[in-house]
Amino acid sequence: MRAVDIICRKRDGNELTADEIEFFIRGYTDGSIPDYQAAAWMMAIYFQGMTDAEATALTLAMAASGQQLDPHKDLPAGTLVVDKHSTGGVGDKTSLVLTPLIASLGLPVGKLSGRGLGFSGGTIDKLECISGFSVDVSTEQFVRQLREIGLVLGGQTADLAPADGKLYALRDVTATVPSRPLIASSIMSKKLATGADGIVLDVKVGRGAFMGTLDEAQQLARLMVEIGKGAGRGMAAVLSDMNQPLGRAVGNALELKEAIATLRGHGPADFTQLVVVLAAEMLRLGGVVDETSDPFSMIMWQLESGDAWLKFRQFIQAQGGDLRLIDNPDNLPAASLVSPLDAGQSGWLAELHADTIGAAAVVLGGGRQKKDDTIDPAVGIVLAAKVGDQVEAGQPLCWIHANDEDRLAEATAMVRDAIRISAEPVDAPPLILDIVH
Amino acid sequence: MRAVDIICRKRDGNELTADEIEFFIRGYTDGSIPDYQAAAWMMAIYFQGMTDAEATALTLAMAASGQQLDPHKDLPAGTLVVDKHSTGGVGDKTSLVLTPLIASLGLPVGKLSGRGLGFSGGTIDKLECISGFSVDVSTEQFVRQLREIGLVLGGQTADLAPADGKLYALRDVTATVPSRPLIASSIMSKKLATGADGIVLDVKVGRGAFMGTLDEAQQLARLMVEIGKGAGRGMAAVLSDMNQPLGRAVGNALELKEAIATLRGHGPADFTQLVVVLAAEMLRLGGVVDETSDPFSMIMWQLESGDAWLKFRQFIQAQGGDLRLIDNPDNLPAASLVSPLDAGQSGWLAELHADTIGAAAVVLGGGRQKKDDTIDPAVGIVLAAKVGDQVEAGQPLCWIHANDEDRLAEATAMVRDAIRISAEPVDAPPLILDIVH
Repeated sequence: MRAVDIICRKRDGNELTADEIEFFIRGYTDGSIPDYQAAAWMMAIYFQGMTDAEATALTLAMAASGQQLDPHKDLPAGTLVVDKHSTGGVGDKTSLVLTPLIASLGLPVGKLSGRGLGFSGGTIDKLECISGFSVDVSTEQFVRQLREIGLVLGGQTADLAPADGKLYALRDVTATVPSRPLIASSIMSKKLATGADGIVLDVKVGRGAFMGTLDEAQQLARLMVEIGKGAGRGMAAVLSDMNQPLGRAVGNALELKEAIATLRGHGPADFTQLVVVLAAEMLRLGGVVDETSDPFSMIMWQLESGDAWLKFRQFIQAQGGDLRLIDNPDNLPAASLVSPLDAGQSGWLAELHADTIGAAAVVLGGGRQKKDDTIDPAVGIVLAAKVGDQVEAGQPLCWIHANDEDRLAEATAMVRDAIRISAEPVDAPPLILDIVH
Repeated sequence: MRAVDIICRKRDGNELTADEIEFFIRGYTDGSIPDYQAAAWMMAIYFQGMTDAEATALTLAMAASGQQLDPHKDLPAGTLVVDKHSTGGVGDKTSLVLTPLIASLGLPVGKLSGRGLGFSGGTIDKLECISGFSVDVSTEQFVRQLREIGLVLGGQTADLAPADGKLYALRDVTATVPSRPLIASSIMSKKLATGADGIVLDVKVGRGAFMGTLDEAQQLARLMVEIGKGAGRGMAAVLSDMNQPLGRAVGNALELKEAIATLRGHGPADFTQLVVVLAAEMLRLGGVVDETSDPFSMIMWQLESGDAWLKFRQFIQAQGGDLRLIDNPDNLPAASLVSPLDAGQSGWLAELHADTIGAAAVVLGGGRQKKDDTIDPAVGIVLAAKVGDQVEAGQPLCWIHANDEDRLAEATAMVRDAIRISAEPVDAPPLILDIVH
């Protein structure tokens, strides 16, 4: 088998065999197939696409290119493990609430997470607002905490799907990022390598998301669900609106505060709704609820009763976090400047561009533009109104939390451009757009 | 300007500017743009194609990537220089006859040639059958011989269009060879760098050629002619049939003998016809004949009078060749085994597959499969009949010249498979298929 023949067959629109795809990924990972052949192959895939069978073979080959985890070995026999992946959006603090919530219902969560790049910090950055909290957990602690509390978060040390890391870096410089099978296999290869039995995909759609239109997002979600099923995993993808930020807080400590409020049963309606829908899918895949039962009241009870919140406290304490900061979130890092942005006219909030709000949060210092940027945990934006809300001239539309006057001015100008107020009533847009099984 | 943006623009089907193309070729030549970006770009060009303006800019950028020659400086003021390029075929000894022929009519030819790879040796390999002949000529000799005899052949020492060499090697391993703008720019960049005023392209069409169909060949020829005109050169492309070998001889010394016979006015009709048509185009571009005159009788006279032959003798002598070998070609290297392949049935020769005949010559040792293979000058195939000829069962269709029994057996089996005899009369196919100006 020769790499050039495999490139040629894909270039000519043929369906590659699993053997050919494995040969290419193995060779690329071990360096016997050079970058330039992988670059030509990726561009041929960009133009010719891949069948579901090819995309599944590609994903499995990438998942097999490094370490493959088995989370079951640390858990009671028969326990199902369910993982969740978000395609990323603005104000996306979903994991902070979802993982203690499902752990409190008996579905264990042992996660290895990376740090965020882009609109805001990742889950770890948000949790590190709590002084003392650390993801630097030993293997022994990971296993014990997973058994005892059912929730543990480690830093990503395992060499998961190294072929994906290498290919992603190459795609970035060869204009081959926006290819559906390449995006789907990149996301799914890392998820398959973690060894979960079920995977719930939190797919964001709109101007603040990677997928701009519902049609694109549905096609990507359908392909990822097919790949996961082809690999023998239970799958669901929840598509939700990301034209405006999720919830009301954007920024690390601000989002942590909103997550704590939600865990205590008084989070924003839209964010709570997404958490509940994702939790229901996870519980179903984890065998905690069956097809016929309605998990929603059970989930709402966990939030309102405080059980999810208590699970979060146990988790934070086990990983060294100072409970005083989460019991009284006013003690979390706070910005020195908190400036309202007032409505210039009365009417209904019609647009609140998530991409621009996210970019403003980065300007304030709340997100990374490069890998080694440091994040200011305190800064961000808190929305006072969302699309469809009636607003009054002179009343605040949002508060901008900053630690620097110049950055505040720049971010304020950006947020102003992100907002449109209509003189006519505007319907609040639906949050959940589709669920793909 | 960034390479990834240029790849992206081509991927999306945009027309690149000359500046963008020059930036890419300059960067690729100096190493600042890596192979993997060039590979992705080539594959994007494969799928999206290039406009004539883009292909011309690409060709000029590649021609400008190394040394650019000026053949005029060694010639009387006002002399036009005309170059010729063959896309390559089986039995293609055209240069051996064409160059002394047009030199004998006052159009100077100073050529730098490489060695052949594939079906048979190149022009230099064929001339090196003449003991003493050398292309290792000094610059002084090159200039003096070009002035005095009007015909000189040097080995290719100049660093012509190095971007083409680098890109061609990359295309070979990334499945991006068969792209019309890339083929055209590769051929034309080297020709433009030689500084000729006029270029005649000898484009072969059929199973023994790079272009299999007339339509493909016409499109490639049209593009090369447009590129040349865009660079201010006089252009013509002659398209000729390469479904069967050109002339009757395939193999280095065998082809040299056929060339000598043609220079003396008794070559095969098809080969003579192609030489005459190409010579007419070169003379027209070189200003030796004008649009209204008929150069054919002038050219035939040069062959029949012996003037072209005398020019060839002068040339061989000037470069150290032993004239006794060409004056009596029986002294040229000869094979130890000469075996006829007889017709199995009577009828008309309907097919004589050039690609298989060429491959058989390589099996005999007459061509290179790898760059450093040595060539056996004596071996090859001499056809006794061509397509359309009536043949008799038991009479030889060709003679196979070999120096090894095993190779003879293998080549004989191949040649047998290359031949089809029809019970019904078959028309001889036309040789000249089109001329593109």
